[in-house]
Amino acid sequence: MLTETVRVREVELYKAAAGLFNKRGYSATSIRQICRTIGIRESSLYHYIRSKEDLLLNICEKAMNVLLGAIEPIAKADLRSDLKLKKMIDVHFAMIAKNSNEHYTMIKELRSLSPANRLRVTHLRDRYGDLFRKTIEDCVHEKLFRSLDVKMTAFALLGMMNSSIRWYSPVGPVESGNIAKIFSDLFFNGVRK
Amino acid sequence: MLTETVRVREVELYKAAAGLFNKRGYSATSIRQICRTIGIRESSLYHYIRSKEDLLLNICEKAMNVLLGAIEPIAKADLRSDLKLKKMIDVHFAMIAKNSNEHYTMIKELRSLSPANRLRVTHLRDRYGDLFRKTIEDCVHEKLFRSLDVKMTAFALLGMMNSSIRWYSPVGPVESGNIAKIFSDLFFNGVRK
Repeated sequence: MLTETVRVREVELYKAAAGLFNKRGYSATSIRQICRTIGIRESSLYHYIRSKEDLLLNICEKAMNVLLGAIEPIAKADLRSDLKLKKMIDVHFAMIAKNSNEHYTMIKELRSLSPANRLRVTHLRDRYGDLFRKTIEDCVHEKLFRSLDVKMTAFALLGMMNSSIRWYSPVGPVESGNIAKIFSDLFFNGVRK
Repeated sequence: MLTETVRVREVELYKAAAGLFNKRGYSATSIRQICRTIGIRESSLYHYIRSKEDLLLNICEKAMNVLLGAIEPIAKADLRSDLKLKKMIDVHFAMIAKNSNEHYTMIKELRSLSPANRLRVTHLRDRYGDLFRKTIEDCVHEKLFRSLDVKMTAFALLGMMNSSIRWYSPVGPVESGNIAKIFSDLFFNGVRK
């Protein structure tokens, strides 16, 4: 029973911290504000974490692991490569819509981590990028895509996808499934009539 | 003669500050480090600027004004809209290659500005985005592009273009003109065979 309460508290803590980090920025958010948000004493907080950076690192790693956990099985599925890529883009936007505070904190506050901790997160990001790069490469080999610079094309796709950080809001007018559809269509077919 | 020296000093100062802000981050860079880099006393620095934030604001505004100054005449030129857009993308990458420290500082450190100062820069960024949005809209009206969501398409293009911040290096292996070519081609034609 106690373990369950602790677990619930921990989930609340990470959710509140990600919300504050995303909204106000990591350095502008104090441990005190986080405690006040979830109604916990500062002394109790250290049952769950060792430091504020610890909290940020866990948020970033969890955000990437959630994405990897969703995308990796698709990338490895027995499916035509272009359909695979389309599904990966769909699921990417769906996952981000569900975890936008965590994901945007991960993108914006990466540099607030110490170099060693930052490396842990960029390692996960690189693994994520590799899934897209590899799938694009497969599309070229299978003649589904024209011959193109795979590395730069993957950069362009991921860049386009990540740029939604500047304007996407989970409560905004554009539904995440719709963004995925528009971006996929652009990437696959371009703008030409 | 003195005026010329002051002007040269000022150029050096902004160049050094943009380099340090881009490399180490704004909050991790001290006025002292900037002074040491260009060999100037702290007391002399305040002939040129009022504060560190002043320096950041000027770097951001200048970065945007340089881009606007280069792109606005193209957007208003008497040229077919799709060729116009292609030229805008080319010139965007050429300008960023020339002012990468200033441009990346502007993107990364926008949130380090006070709300009022931030608004001055986002106002310029919005004007810049509008030039691309308007040109895409013209392409759709002139049936050069298929019918598409203009706002989202402009977001996708600008997102793709700005994402180069994560991997582009002016001394790296990919030449900026080549990036522009690859990204234009992707945006216009998509990846399909």
